[in-house]
Amino acid sequence: MSPTPNSIVSSLQRSGRFINSLIAALTIVGEQLFSSFTFRCPCQVGKNFYYGSTFLVIPALILLVAGYALRSQMWTISSEYCCSCAPPHRRISPLEHKLACLRFFSITGRALVAPLTWLAVTLLTGTYYECAASEFASVDHYPVFDNVSARKQKEILAGFPCCKSAPPDMILVRDEVALLHRYHSQMLGWILITLATIAVLISCCLARCCSPLTSLQHYYWTNHLHNEKELFEQAAEQHSRFLTMQRLKKLFGLVPGNEDIKHIRIPSCQDW
Amino acid sequence: MSPTPNSIVSSLQRSGRFINSLIAALTIVGEQLFSSFTFRCPCQVGKNFYYGSTFLVIPALILLVAGYALRSQMWTISSEYCCSCAPPHRRISPLEHKLACLRFFSITGRALVAPLTWLAVTLLTGTYYECAASEFASVDHYPVFDNVSARKQKEILAGFPCCKSAPPDMILVRDEVALLHRYHSQMLGWILITLATIAVLISCCLARCCSPLTSLQHYYWTNHLHNEKELFEQAAEQHSRFLTMQRLKKLFGLVPGNEDIKHIRIPSCQDW
Amino acid sequence: MSPTPNSIVSSLQRSGRFINSLIAALTIVGEQLFSSFTFRCPCQVGKNFYYGSTFLVIPALILLVAGYALRSQMWTISSEYCCSCAPPHRRISPLEHKLACLRFFSITGRALVAPLTWLAVTLLTGTYYECAASEFASVDHYPVFDNVSARKQKEILAGFPCCKSAPPDMILVRDEVALLHRYHSQMLGWILITLATIAVLISCCLARCCSPLTSLQHYYWTNHLHNEKELFEQAAEQHSRFLTMQRLKKLFGLVPGNEDIKHIRIPSCQDW
Repeated sequence: MSPTPNSIVSSLQRSGRFINSLIAALTIVGEQLFSSFTFRCPCQVGKNFYYGSTFLVIPALILLVAGYALRSQMWTISSEYCCSCAPPHRRISPLEHKLACLRFFSITGRALVAPLTWLAVTLLTGTYYECAASEFASVDHYPVFDNVSARKQKEILAGFPCCKSAPPDMILVRDEVALLHRYHSQMLGWILITLATIAVLISCCLARCCSPLTSLQHYYWTNHLHNEKELFEQAAEQHSRFLTMQRLKKLFGLVPGNEDIKHIRIPSCQDW
Repeated sequence: MSPTPNSIVSSLQRSGRFINSLIAALTIVGEQLFSSFTFRCPCQVGKNFYYGSTFLVIPALILLVAGYALRSQMWTISSEYCCSCAPPHRRISPLEHKLACLRFFSITGRALVAPLTWLAVTLLTGTYYECAASEFASVDHYPVFDNVSARKQKEILAGFPCCKSAPPDMILVRDEVALLHRYHSQMLGWILITLATIAVLISCCLARCCSPLTSLQHYYWTNHLHNEKELFEQAAEQHSRFLTMQRLKKLFGLVPGNEDIKHIRIPSCQDW
Repeated sequence: MSPTPNSIVSSLQRSGRFINSLIAALTIVGEQLFSSFTFRCPCQVGKNFYYGSTFLVIPALILLVAGYALRSQMWTISSEYCCSCAPPHRRISPLEHKLACLRFFSITGRALVAPLTWLAVTLLTGTYYECAASEFASVDHYPVFDNVSARKQKEILAGFPCCKSAPPDMILVRDEVALLHRYHSQMLGWILITLATIAVLISCCLARCCSPLTSLQHYYWTNHLHNEKELFEQAAEQHSRFLTMQRLKKLFGLVPGNEDIKHIRIPSCQDW
């Protein structure tokens, strides 16, 4: 059996790696477009921090929620195991419990791809962090700031991310502060990426080693879930079409697509 | 059964996520095109606010109404449950009531996609808000405005969104006011998006957990509604064509598309 | 049998050389893009070294971990041989042990391609090394540094990678130091490439010479593994489809794709 384009596409869709890479790539492109069009640091005391951290954190949280909510498996699991209105007579075996945990972890992993990519990309780019941290830079060792009041100093610092509003003698200080913030931001980004990589590695090891399934069983089970869904959809389709046809035959006396119109009738008012 | 392009397209059409994304994407593109071609802030005292808020709110309301009106399911539900002229002998079971509520919520969710996207995009872009709020900026702490009458100050502030109408010494103030308004607008946008996300999450949880259907039943039911509609349309089409053909045969003695013209006749005056 | 596009693609996929070249090329392009967009040396005492070495080492480590984690064979081996929860009754023959080692070495080889490429490219480019090593340059033989305190000298050296922050009389020294660092970095790069080439050569020789298989056996074994996987997948597919069909027959009374609908039934609530 040679691989047809369809089977390649469907196996790609089933493989988690491809989808994760796609999500990460879309997040990176989206972040770059989004931040180039909408991000304008307000450069005013007391607003920079909220603005920068909003752009840093809120999209990541929304991507996390969306990642959970868009996975239909999530709803299947939650309605099967958590809802009190589920049929009480159904017994859940320990193996099923373990498998549900496994699926929950795999969904969590998938849901974390986009938010972590967002955080990593924004931290490595550094613009948002630079805006958020601008007021908190320590510039007491610069002689330029010696005879400047604390309030004025805050204002100058808040103005640093907007290039035009800095006084000309501050350009050197501004560049050094910008480099320092970029250093902090990128270091945080690398720490985040490293921690995420370690967490992925450990969780993969744990999931594989402590899984109740061997790798062949795992393959069979994933495949079985997919087949079950596909065949159920086909059967449901056929079943519902057949039921509807029976009802329509009663109503109109004919079946769509069938030329046999001997029993055709005009439906009475009660039929509708 | 390998997936054909047709079946892929029809399954995409049926899946809510795809349609919602499409609506949101069209709204974003439309907003950008619309605002770049038509939005020109009037920059006159007392007009900016009405102009800006009209562009902000009215399209969202129209999109909301259109979202409800364009969904044929909405009319089915309303004529089934609300109209007094519905046949009174039909009893509605509690399950049907719950299902109707479920459908109403799903239609509301779909109808809210476009208006919320419009509001979020316009607030994140910030142009409309900047125009609407331009007169209400507090600029008393700028020394430039010290010896300017209140009426003149209003005029200057109203002129800020149009780049050319600002006096040259006001450029710094104008830039700061623009950044402040953009900050307010984008913060409002993020708050809106966060609230909408939380509301979607909670309503999804409630709908799934308190739904009278398991997830498989829900799938079957959605699919069944779709099939019922499609087959009913086919059957109604066929039925009405056949009835009309019978009548035409009586009148002219021929059937359109059929070459058998032995029984052709000229209709008498009574026939018409 | 003339080669069809499908068979060419599948034989390319199976051949390690093609994938290794692809990984290396992607790494080179990615490194160039990444470093041009995000790398800004902080040019401050005590930060240059950490910044430069983070950009040099951490991506290589992450690529190494990713290279191991993304290979599904790795998980098969580790769960077969390492996990304590594996079935204890299975005896592993010495040949199987040797084959597992062989597979482990081949996976390690593949996993090392991206990190070694990253290290080689960054060392040959030299920017990261220049930033990391900037503080540690020995400049005592330059007369310019004679009457400069050690702390001030560190600061000047740390500022060298940022072109603008160097005092004008230091430009000659800065250029010489930059050339020296680039020389060190590129020499390290060449040494790394040479060592990697020798290691690849030796390990290939050892793997072939000390392998328990002749080259024909090796070909047969690789092919056998591939066939085993393919046939297992086909059998699992068929098995799971059959099981699902039986269950669906119980639920709906029909089998998808089968026109026999004599026993069709509407599922009761308990069935779901």
